[in-house]
Amino acid sequence: MMQPNPFYKDLQEEYLFRYIAGKTEEFRKEHPGEKLLRMGIGDVSLPLPPSVIRALHEAVSDQADPQKFHGYMPECGGDFLRNAVAAHYRRRGIDIDPAEVFVSSGASDELGDLQDLFARENTALIMEPVYPAYLDACIIAGRKILHLPSGWQNDFLPEPDDSINADMVYLCSPNNPTGAVFTKALLKDWVDWANRRGAVILFDAAYEAFITDENLPRSIFEIDGARTCAIEICSLSKTAGFTGTRLGYTVIPEALIRQEMNLNRMWVRNRTTKTNGISYILQKGGSAVFTEEGQKEIQENIAVYRKNAAVLSKALEEEDVRFTGGKNAPYIWMKCPNGFKSWDFFDLLLQKIQVIGTPGAGFGEAGEGCFRFSTFGSPADTEEAACRLGQLLRRIKEGTVSLGG
Amino acid sequence: MMQPNPFYKDLQEEYLFRYIAGKTEEFRKEHPGEKLLRMGIGDVSLPLPPSVIRALHEAVSDQADPQKFHGYMPECGGDFLRNAVAAHYRRRGIDIDPAEVFVSSGASDELGDLQDLFARENTALIMEPVYPAYLDACIIAGRKILHLPSGWQNDFLPEPDDSINADMVYLCSPNNPTGAVFTKALLKDWVDWANRRGAVILFDAAYEAFITDENLPRSIFEIDGARTCAIEICSLSKTAGFTGTRLGYTVIPEALIRQEMNLNRMWVRNRTTKTNGISYILQKGGSAVFTEEGQKEIQENIAVYRKNAAVLSKALEEEDVRFTGGKNAPYIWMKCPNGFKSWDFFDLLLQKIQVIGTPGAGFGEAGEGCFRFSTFGSPADTEEAACRLGQLLRRIKEGTVSLGG
Repeated sequence: MMQPNPFYKDLQEEYLFRYIAGKTEEFRKEHPGEKLLRMGIGDVSLPLPPSVIRALHEAVSDQADPQKFHGYMPECGGDFLRNAVAAHYRRRGIDIDPAEVFVSSGASDELGDLQDLFARENTALIMEPVYPAYLDACIIAGRKILHLPSGWQNDFLPEPDDSINADMVYLCSPNNPTGAVFTKALLKDWVDWANRRGAVILFDAAYEAFITDENLPRSIFEIDGARTCAIEICSLSKTAGFTGTRLGYTVIPEALIRQEMNLNRMWVRNRTTKTNGISYILQKGGSAVFTEEGQKEIQENIAVYRKNAAVLSKALEEEDVRFTGGKNAPYIWMKCPNGFKSWDFFDLLLQKIQVIGTPGAGFGEAGEGCFRFSTFGSPADTEEAACRLGQLLRRIKEGTVSLGG
Repeated sequence: MMQPNPFYKDLQEEYLFRYIAGKTEEFRKEHPGEKLLRMGIGDVSLPLPPSVIRALHEAVSDQADPQKFHGYMPECGGDFLRNAVAAHYRRRGIDIDPAEVFVSSGASDELGDLQDLFARENTALIMEPVYPAYLDACIIAGRKILHLPSGWQNDFLPEPDDSINADMVYLCSPNNPTGAVFTKALLKDWVDWANRRGAVILFDAAYEAFITDENLPRSIFEIDGARTCAIEICSLSKTAGFTGTRLGYTVIPEALIRQEMNLNRMWVRNRTTKTNGISYILQKGGSAVFTEEGQKEIQENIAVYRKNAAVLSKALEEEDVRFTGGKNAPYIWMKCPNGFKSWDFFDLLLQKIQVIGTPGAGFGEAGEGCFRFSTFGSPADTEEAACRLGQLLRRIKEGTVSLGG
């Protein structure tokens, strides 16, 4: 008798964002006339930059041309793209070899797939609040899980200490959901912790492009010692608007070795066995992001989202609401007013002002009482949402709006 | 200390096709002038059909248009494509619901990812000769493996029997590497075997489009009882030339339940957790394959490969070489002449006639003494290869060519 993977039983029935999509759809059906302002899921709204579009069209045309047609791509990525990514790191002063770069379908796919490198017996450290895919992927893999809560007292940036008995840890900076960003000093503490105990850091850098403060690290490989303990997972989803187009890359340093096994080589073996590479068309489109023109264009788009974050931040500041993120991150993580529970606040926002956000409790217990806004929507929607939110917060303060009221 | 997945140590150092690519590259460097005829890896040579190209260009243009831009796709696939695939099955008399269809990046990715549905404790049955990715994915997952060899005595189509104590089995028909195709009766025996013992069949239908004999099953769901024991993994790679473009789909019936766990629901949970869906652009391109025009165009391409198979088959028939495949399959699996070992025959072909094939031993011990040719090359290369091969086989018969000679 085939035995299904028993660990699925330990998962909540539905993945967070699917559950929210269901709840939203329900409201929509009941209120067909209402305009919903979606600031929940971190999905971009601006089209792909012109240079990426051009590269995609060219690649599609290549696939129509018998002389230029591309069949199977190298499983770890086309050289043109691996070289472009390595050069991109080098321009920022980080020495990465193209053979350390793996092209992926995007960070979310990769974060799950990478589980395959680790023996089941490893204990995973999950910082909370947490992007639920990390936790769920560890659950599906049957791992022991250590939870490390964070909160307003440490600005949602927990510190390592040697009593934390874990073998692998997901770090996300700028953080999803809190928008908090590790300083170089704090990230160095985590790198040192990992090297001391032989742990491995899975560093999710999906939001690095949103960092403006030059003192904050955009890559873990800016930190001494990271090459012997870290894997960096990157994505073009937020950087270049690829959420629906799909492309990312992962850096596994040659020096990352555990029990005499080289993790870079293991990943080569995994990719050559379990995939047939990433679409030629998408890789060509992605490579345009790393050109001078592409970099300029993506900065224009990112500036729009940054402005959204500023608009929403201002609304919260005006109402004296405590929050993190929004400055070097595309997420804003606010404290719910009046001690509201986060799912109650979700319902209140949906019912009263038709703004959809993400309840903090969806990111683990440490997120209870908090609420996440994504700033990837259109500027018009964001301004409208900020305005409605400001009004609602005032009415809550005045006591003219309350739960169920 | 992080422990790497220990099962990688049980793998051979390099994946078969990567090893062959290395050997070929070596020869190329030593003999820069020689023209190599590549009939090793099953990579297509014809460009994508015009209707697919048009759909891809349109989708790229959508990604440039603020009104039509697509962000995150539904993780299990766009409705337009799930519906198109289900309708495609229905036109062939097979009742598949769109919710049973999952869009994938291609069969090879999916065959590895699906391991996640199964508890480690399951025993996997591997028929040999075998596409090495099945075996290697099971090794990485740490499974117990049962090998079921086949050979010329049963035309490489092994029969089930109740002494085979396995919980999951990969079936590939038309088979890679042997080109053998299960009859409905034999496939029914396997379905009955799986239902009797609660095993699950992973049915790799990547080559179904090459079946011309109307009595042979193109889908396992043509067989009564398959809905309670089978997952079907399909690909557009060979059907529509998507090897470098990447797209596939998988059917997991609603009725596939083990230990009260619904595998379709488990896969929804897996995809929503571990992926953010497949590229909008690729899904749009793929959906064109299922239009009337797309179907006509892909048949024109497949006809070219079929003719290649006929050309190569004729050369082998003329030299009285025993082989399977080539008729309802794009692979030809021949018996090496003079009892040659398959790697020796590989070297002989490379050195003497610069034809690259795949040694049978690369597909497991049961493949020793056999050799695989892919028929996805250009007609000119295939004719040249068939001609050279015919001459070489004659010279071997005459005794004027031998190993090392």
